[in-house]
Amino acid sequence: MGKTFKLLGIGVVAVTLSLEGISWLLRCLRDGRGRPVKEVLFFPTTVTCINHLFLPGPCSCSLPHGDSTPFTRLLRHLLSARSSLDLCIFAFSSQELCRVVLELHRQHGVSVRVVTDKDYMMISGSQIGALRKAGISVRHELGGFHMHHKFAVVDKKLLITGSLNWTHQAVQGNKENVLVTEDSGFVRPFLQEFEKLWDANDPARSPTLSDFIML
Amino acid sequence: MGKTFKLLGIGVVAVTLSLEGISWLLRCLRDGRGRPVKEVLFFPTTVTCINHLFLPGPCSCSLPHGDSTPFTRLLRHLLSARSSLDLCIFAFSSQELCRVVLELHRQHGVSVRVVTDKDYMMISGSQIGALRKAGISVRHELGGFHMHHKFAVVDKKLLITGSLNWTHQAVQGNKENVLVTEDSGFVRPFLQEFEKLWDANDPARSPTLSDFIML
Repeated sequence: MGKTFKLLGIGVVAVTLSLEGISWLLRCLRDGRGRPVKEVLFFPTTVTCINHLFLPGPCSCSLPHGDSTPFTRLLRHLLSARSSLDLCIFAFSSQELCRVVLELHRQHGVSVRVVTDKDYMMISGSQIGALRKAGISVRHELGGFHMHHKFAVVDKKLLITGSLNWTHQAVQGNKENVLVTEDSGFVRPFLQEFEKLWDANDPARSPTLSDFIML
Repeated sequence: MGKTFKLLGIGVVAVTLSLEGISWLLRCLRDGRGRPVKEVLFFPTTVTCINHLFLPGPCSCSLPHGDSTPFTRLLRHLLSARSSLDLCIFAFSSQELCRVVLELHRQHGVSVRVVTDKDYMMISGSQIGALRKAGISVRHELGGFHMHHKFAVVDKKLLITGSLNWTHQAVQGNKENVLVTEDSGFVRPFLQEFEKLWDANDPARSPTLSDFIML
């Protein structure tokens, strides 16, 4: 009886410690590949050189080099895309952000989809034309009000969202925020919203002149 | 030796099971008082009656009653304030949202502070004047660019942030998002940003005519 109890005790200890050990090991492995991203970026940002994000090696331009700013962190998050970038953006006139999107599309083979606002895609300096010219799929709001979102989802798992439009003034002038998260409780609904807007603004669904003639 | 080992085994099992038990109990207690809020709201919303959020009892207006919409959920989150509401808002012309803020200030004794944009506080239908008239502390951006945030922090622990300005068009027309979270990793930086903007836009720091006369 005593021996049985001792063996039972040892068994329970062994199982409990094994479970704790496996849990600890999983946590260590998770930390090793990085905790889930959770970050808040505030703007305006100081102006620094961003060439090193695209081209390795020294740069001779007159801007400060090597500094980490909210803007370079935002660009790095976007450049981390390996398979897809789904972007809903109200106003897009930042040349630096356009350079990132074109880089992802041309050099990294990332599947880029953009939904934007029909009025603001025509603002001075808008980069929407450059995206379309490069062969990127862009759809614009077909409804009567604004598509006012400013969010991006990288590889279906990293959400970048906030008040920041992708304009020079927003980045370097305004008080703005960008929240970055891998929390699926936030990422999933934004992905669903993107798909909803992507489908709703399919030009094939828009009534054309021939539709009116048929009526 | 055998007895010592047995006792040691029982001791380890007892301690381990106790720790697991305490952990389980804490989780149960936490679930009992509700999981941390984590929610995403998308707009536009349908128009429903919101009187029941302020006054108990039936309402005879012609709007739909009793429906839960993204807007009523947003209002409920704001009305959950018991001690403070810190609000950074670019454009504020929604009468319903103004009613909520006035209710918190007048009826619930909540300490309300508002930072807004100097240009957009003068848009048609702006509610900023009504807030100031009611004795609510409002500061506006003193810098040269826009205060473009749209966030609120309730009781220093619930963050409400997104693309949604507090306007009629944003709520009922535009495609907008609002993210609601109690995650301190997000709440803390937004609280710090609020305090930074609150201090930076203190009118006492702004140069007045007498400052220029002294120069």
